[in-house]
Amino acid sequence: MAAERMVVVGGDAAGMAAASQARRLKGPDRLEIVAFERTGFTSYSACGIPYWVAGDVSDRDALVARTPHEHAERGIDLRMRTEVTELDVAGRRVRARELETGREYWTGYDKLVLATGASPLRPPLPGIDAPGVHGVQTLDDGQALLDTLARTKGRHAVVVGAGYIGVEMAEALVRHGYEVTVVHRDEQPMSTLDPDMGRLVHEAMTGMGITVVGGQAVTEIRTGEGGRACAVVTRDAAYPADVVVLGIGVRPRTGLARAAGLPLGDSGGLLTDLSMRVRGYEEIWAGGDCVEVLDLVSGRTRHIALGTHANKHGQVIGANAGGDYATFPGVVGTAVSKVCDLEIARTGLREKDAHAVGLRFETVTAQSTSRAGYYPGAEPMTVKMTAERRTGRLLGVQIVGREGAGKRVDVAAVALTAGMTVEQMNALDLGYAPPFSPVWDPVLVAARKAAKQIRTAD
Amino acid sequence: MAAERMVVVGGDAAGMAAASQARRLKGPDRLEIVAFERTGFTSYSACGIPYWVAGDVSDRDALVARTPHEHAERGIDLRMRTEVTELDVAGRRVRARELETGREYWTGYDKLVLATGASPLRPPLPGIDAPGVHGVQTLDDGQALLDTLARTKGRHAVVVGAGYIGVEMAEALVRHGYEVTVVHRDEQPMSTLDPDMGRLVHEAMTGMGITVVGGQAVTEIRTGEGGRACAVVTRDAAYPADVVVLGIGVRPRTGLARAAGLPLGDSGGLLTDLSMRVRGYEEIWAGGDCVEVLDLVSGRTRHIALGTHANKHGQVIGANAGGDYATFPGVVGTAVSKVCDLEIARTGLREKDAHAVGLRFETVTAQSTSRAGYYPGAEPMTVKMTAERRTGRLLGVQIVGREGAGKRVDVAAVALTAGMTVEQMNALDLGYAPPFSPVWDPVLVAARKAAKQIRTAD
Repeated sequence: MAAERMVVVGGDAAGMAAASQARRLKGPDRLEIVAFERTGFTSYSACGIPYWVAGDVSDRDALVARTPHEHAERGIDLRMRTEVTELDVAGRRVRARELETGREYWTGYDKLVLATGASPLRPPLPGIDAPGVHGVQTLDDGQALLDTLARTKGRHAVVVGAGYIGVEMAEALVRHGYEVTVVHRDEQPMSTLDPDMGRLVHEAMTGMGITVVGGQAVTEIRTGEGGRACAVVTRDAAYPADVVVLGIGVRPRTGLARAAGLPLGDSGGLLTDLSMRVRGYEEIWAGGDCVEVLDLVSGRTRHIALGTHANKHGQVIGANAGGDYATFPGVVGTAVSKVCDLEIARTGLREKDAHAVGLRFETVTAQSTSRAGYYPGAEPMTVKMTAERRTGRLLGVQIVGREGAGKRVDVAAVALTAGMTVEQMNALDLGYAPPFSPVWDPVLVAARKAAKQIRTAD
Repeated sequence: MAAERMVVVGGDAAGMAAASQARRLKGPDRLEIVAFERTGFTSYSACGIPYWVAGDVSDRDALVARTPHEHAERGIDLRMRTEVTELDVAGRRVRARELETGREYWTGYDKLVLATGASPLRPPLPGIDAPGVHGVQTLDDGQALLDTLARTKGRHAVVVGAGYIGVEMAEALVRHGYEVTVVHRDEQPMSTLDPDMGRLVHEAMTGMGITVVGGQAVTEIRTGEGGRACAVVTRDAAYPADVVVLGIGVRPRTGLARAAGLPLGDSGGLLTDLSMRVRGYEEIWAGGDCVEVLDLVSGRTRHIALGTHANKHGQVIGANAGGDYATFPGVVGTAVSKVCDLEIARTGLREKDAHAVGLRFETVTAQSTSRAGYYPGAEPMTVKMTAERRTGRLLGVQIVGREGAGKRVDVAAVALTAGMTVEQMNALDLGYAPPFSPVWDPVLVAARKAAKQIRTAD
C-alpha cells in the first residue's frame, strides 16, 4: 500500500502538534506529512511575546518549542516561508507559493489539516501603518517592537485595546520606563470580565501609574517627523505616543477556507465536529486559532485564540488523522492573565453572555484573601460568582487579586465542566493550610454566598 | 413556647461555628446556647501554630478568629475553663466541672453538639513528660515551646514524626537556627503520600540541611541536667536534642462519647450521618476533629483533623440545629503543606488505600513546571496520578514541587468529587498564560499520561 499523504497548512501550535502526533502513530512508510508555514518560525508561543518584550524572557528562541529543523528530523516535510493560496477540495489539493522565489505549485493530499491561525484586527485608520505602530502577534512583530524600543528614546507609549494582550503590553512598556496610556472602547478594561470586575482592573492599573482611558474609539494615528507615529487620536483627545502597540484582538484567518466553501461560524472561524473534523468533510481537520470551539456552558460556538486550546486541538487531530481516536469536547472559557502584580482570571459566562442565551441567574461578589489572614503575604482577592436561578448551576467565576488569585479559577473551571451547583461547590474539599488559603477558600466563600442567594431568590 | 437549650461541648472551630450559625438563625428568645471550653481560648487556628512558632505570625492573638468575649457578645453563654466530664444521654444532660474552682454541676440540653476535638498521640515513653519536650496542639503548647526556645541557647532540635505537623515544625526550628533532625517510623516522611513521593520530600528536606531519619521508632527521651530532655533515643541511635517537638499525630478525643455509648468508628471518631447528627441520636450532633468523615473515594469513614472540615461541620450543625438544612457530603482527602519552599499536596487515595478497598489501578508520574518553561520562576513539579483500571476514574493525585505546586491539587479534588475519568480530565479547560502555567498544565500532563496508560493497560 502506498503511503497516505497528509498536508498541514500552518506550522504553529495546532498544525505541528497534529503533525507530530500523527507521526508518532504512523511512520513515514505509512504516512507522508507535508507542512506549509508562511513565516520563518514553527511551534512558538505567541502568548509569550509580551514577556519577551518586557524582558522577562531574554531570548526569542526560548519561545520556540520546536524548530523547523527539529520537525524535519522527525520526518515531517516542512516547507517554510511557503504560503498556501488556494484549496481545491474536489481535487484534494492545495496550491502553494514559495514567498522568496515566487514559485507556485499544486500538491495533493489524502488528509488535510487547516491550522491557519488568526490575524490581528487592524482597523483601516489613517496612520495605522506608520513606523512606530506595532502589533504583537508574531515573533517578527515582537522583534520589530523591541528594535523600536531600543532605537527610540521615547517617553510616552500608547496601547490601543485593553484585553489580555493590551494589559500585558502595558506592563511590558512600563518595564521599559514608558509612561503608558491604554486607550480602549469599552466601559472598563478587560471586557472579557463583567464591567464591575473590569473596574477593579482599571483601579489597580491606575494605582500602577498606567493611564486607562475607556469609551474611546481611535480615529487616527497621527504622524510627525519622518512619518513616524506621534499620537493616538480619538474623538475626544489626542494622546502623545512615541510608540503605539495594537492589542485590539484577532480574528480567525480563514480566507482560504471561506474561498473553498468550508463552513464558518458567526465569528468567522471554521466549524468542526468533536473530533476536530471540519463539519461535512471526512478528510479535512481544523484546529487552533482558525476554528470556533463549543462553549459547554452556553452551548454555542465561540472564537478563542489561546495556545492551550491550539495544542489540544493538534493532539486530537493528529490522533484521529493517525488512525487513533480522540475528541475535543469543548471549553468553558477559562482565561488568566496578569498586569504587574495584579492577577485576572475568568471562566464561564459573563452576565451578558448568560442573558444572551436566555439564562436567569444570581450573582454574588465575595472578598477574601489568598492565604490565612494572619499569614504573611495574604493578599486581598475579589471573587464574583454567577449561578443559574432555580437549579443553582454554576455559570461563571471571575477573580481579580494579587499573587495566588489567578489559578484559583481552575476550581471553577472543573466545577463548570462537571455541571456542579454552587451548593455542591460549597462542600468541596479544597487544599487548606495557612500559607495556601484561609480556612474557607475564597472560591468556597463565594459559593456559600451564591448558594444562599439562590435559596432565597425565589 | 419556652426557649430550647443547645449545649456545645468544645469551643474551637466546629463548636463555635455551630453555635454562631445557630444563633444567626435563632435569637436568644428561641434558642439558649451554652458552650463549654476546657482551655482559655476559643475559635483559634491550631493549623497556624507552626507559623507562629516559626515567626511568620508575630502575635498569638492573630490566630484567634473570635475571642470568648466576642462570642459572649453574640448571645452565647460561654463557660471557659470548664470541662464536660459526663454525658447522660437518657437524661439529656451533661456534667460540667469548673477547672479553677472544682465546682461540678449537671446541666440539661434539648440539643447537644459534641466538638471535643482531638488529643495528641503521646506514647508512654520514658522521658516523654520531661521539660524540653513539646507538643504543638494548643496555643498554650505553642507558647510553652516559644518560651523554651527563648530560654534555651540550644543547637540541636529533634522532631518526632514526619507528617504535616512534623515537617512544618522542622521548618520552624530551622528558622530559629537549630540543626534539626526529624525522626520517624515510616519508610519515607509524609506517609500521607505514597513512598515514592515521600522520597522526594525526604530529598528536598535533606537539601535544606534537615536530617531525616526514617524507619526508627523512638524508645526513650533521654534526660540530662535538671531532668531536661537531652536526646531522642531509638533502637539504633541517640539524637542529641536541646528541644524535642512531638508531631506524631492526633486521635479523636471521644472518651465522653465512648462512655455514653455513642457510636465510634475504627479510628475512634464519632460516626455521624450526612447532617452531622450522631448516628441513631436525633438530638446530638458532632463535628470537627472528634468525628470520622466519609471518604467519597473509598466509601469508608476516616479520621482527618483539619480546620477547614471543622468549620464546615460547625456550619452544617448550626444550620440543622437552628432549624435550617445543610449536609456535609464527605471528603476526598485533600491536604496541602509546605516545608520551607517545598510544597506538598495530596488528594484521594494512596496506592495502599486503593488496594485496601479492592480497587485495581494504574499510576503515572509526570514531571512538569509551575509556569511556562521560559518564564522566570518556573519551578519543577512532580505530579503522581492514580486511576482505576477499566473505568479510568481518577482515584488520587499527589504533588511535590515548589511555589505554585500545592494548590494545583484542587483541580484533582474537584475532579474526584465529580467522579471524572482521567480521559475527561485531559480535556479540562484550565487557566493558561505563561506566568501561570505551561501550555499543558502539570495536572493535565499527568492526566494525559494516565489516560494513555489506562487505554493500553488491558
